[in-house]
Amino acid sequence: MDGPGMDVVDEAGAKAPQDRLAAWLAEDMAAVNLLIRERMASRHAPRIPEVTAHLVEAGGKRLRPMLTLAAARMLGYAGKDHLKLAATVEFIHTATLLHDDVVDESQRRRGRPTANLLWDNKSSVLVGDYLFSRSFQLMVETGNLRVLDILANASATIAEGEVLQLTAAQDLRTDEQVYLQIVRGKTAALFSAATEVGGVIADAPEDQVRALFDYGDALGIAFQIVDDILDYGGTAATIGKNTGDDFRERKLTLPVIHAVARATPEERAFWVRVIEKGDQQDGDLERAMAILAEHGAIEHARDTAMAWAGRAREALCHLPESELRLLLSQLADYVVERVS
Amino acid sequence: MDGPGMDVVDEAGAKAPQDRLAAWLAEDMAAVNLLIRERMASRHAPRIPEVTAHLVEAGGKRLRPMLTLAAARMLGYAGKDHLKLAATVEFIHTATLLHDDVVDESQRRRGRPTANLLWDNKSSVLVGDYLFSRSFQLMVETGNLRVLDILANASATIAEGEVLQLTAAQDLRTDEQVYLQIVRGKTAALFSAATEVGGVIADAPEDQVRALFDYGDALGIAFQIVDDILDYGGTAATIGKNTGDDFRERKLTLPVIHAVARATPEERAFWVRVIEKGDQQDGDLERAMAILAEHGAIEHARDTAMAWAGRAREALCHLPESELRLLLSQLADYVVERVS
Repeated sequence: MDGPGMDVVDEAGAKAPQDRLAAWLAEDMAAVNLLIRERMASRHAPRIPEVTAHLVEAGGKRLRPMLTLAAARMLGYAGKDHLKLAATVEFIHTATLLHDDVVDESQRRRGRPTANLLWDNKSSVLVGDYLFSRSFQLMVETGNLRVLDILANASATIAEGEVLQLTAAQDLRTDEQVYLQIVRGKTAALFSAATEVGGVIADAPEDQVRALFDYGDALGIAFQIVDDILDYGGTAATIGKNTGDDFRERKLTLPVIHAVARATPEERAFWVRVIEKGDQQDGDLERAMAILAEHGAIEHARDTAMAWAGRAREALCHLPESELRLLLSQLADYVVERVS
Repeated sequence: MDGPGMDVVDEAGAKAPQDRLAAWLAEDMAAVNLLIRERMASRHAPRIPEVTAHLVEAGGKRLRPMLTLAAARMLGYAGKDHLKLAATVEFIHTATLLHDDVVDESQRRRGRPTANLLWDNKSSVLVGDYLFSRSFQLMVETGNLRVLDILANASATIAEGEVLQLTAAQDLRTDEQVYLQIVRGKTAALFSAATEVGGVIADAPEDQVRALFDYGDALGIAFQIVDDILDYGGTAATIGKNTGDDFRERKLTLPVIHAVARATPEERAFWVRVIEKGDQQDGDLERAMAILAEHGAIEHARDTAMAWAGRAREALCHLPESELRLLLSQLADYVVERVS
């Protein structure tokens, strides 16, 4: 298998696995970026490239398309359809970000003002729809019905997870099982579809396709749990959004679910007030963080994330040994390193 | 070809063509309605069927799925995939309605409060996404790549048309050509896809598939022009939404475009104030309607709609003569009858 390979691996100490993956896949990624720019254009509606450029060029890490490229390349795929699928996956991701920002009434994304703030909610909704339809065109071009089936199911799981999150927010009865379902919907479904379609397009044997799905699923879950932990402790600089967003939006994430399950009557009254009733005052976020600390809720969430990262690494054992496999394994560790 | 057939046609004087079409297709439509109810359910997120049931059961006329069924049956299709495609088309339509209501900040739809008013914008955005993904799953199940291609392209045209409408609103430079493009996007693209996929699934010869596309395209354009006319003259009872909605949303529809092109300096100042600046006062809608009348703007729009209905009928000449063809031809007339 060609690629920049060993040079990059030698720099292990200097670069994050994600950057080494990007270096390995540099040629493919350049082609994907070109495709993304071509396909997000619209002859008729100049508002579309304005909004999408704001988001697509904002320096997102392109993690999801890299997963598709890595999966396909790792299994020896030599065609061009993996580029279309990588762009598909990034378009779906960008579309969900646009709609999420409307739903969450967010102000910042990737360290910049959100599209709904710069333009309006209308543009975010409609340009999101446009990107969904563009992603759909791209995947249809591959002519691979199994790939279409996987991505259609992933889209439904994503939308279902988002609605579930909406109804579970503000509801203290939300438990770890419901949380996992939400996380699979909002994050892991696209990760696992991204890796799975890479294997399908490479015509890999069933057990390898399954292993790729399992890797993406576990990586996505670990990734989202870490994101939820950072919301109670990262800085705006490191995560590009404000600490406490989930708290303000009254979302039941893993740390809070853990603390609510162990709450004293007084703490429970606090959670009822700030999450269920939404009556939040100055100092409440700090108090929430103190309660989380008291019950080891952050540690519990971190342990859970590390266990999922472990499952991601284990799934890789079913795949042929290669440099890309090693990079994907290191990526799983790296995702949880942000909170360890 | 079987079906209730002649009985229904005999009632031509008593029933609208749409009702006769519904009677002809009753068995298929019952299966489609069942499929719609099955597929809009969600095991995980009970909010979803609540919102969709509100809309799907609100007594929409199911015009688009009927077009798919009629096209497939007219060309002798004997399989079951037309049911899935009919449900697909209705889901896409319902999803765009949900997103439109967020974009237009509408209060009423089909004579009832809109979902964004009953629940919230968040639910409308996310449940719309869910219906899109469900439509996608349904069409993938047909395993017909050409059908997928048609529907993917239609989705992109719809989204592009909506964004174009957003940027063209409030802009007095919008001309009939841009208007036509918006109308193709917001309405005709789904009509023409609905009829075209019916022909494709029936494995019809190319010229017939093309004729079905042309029929749907022209019918959709006529339909939308009539809708835009009614917005300046229908009553809330007949169209289920309030007269003057487009005026209040500062949309440049055909009657206004015609009047703006012929405006006196004084009238132009009026249009600049109410449409471009959005400074609307009591009595402005009445003044707008008086100006439209003065320039024969409604008559012009009506003539345009009738010309498109004529093109729809002409397209049908390329299809084998049948009862369904006659009903579709009468439907084209009926669509414009609402304003003649």
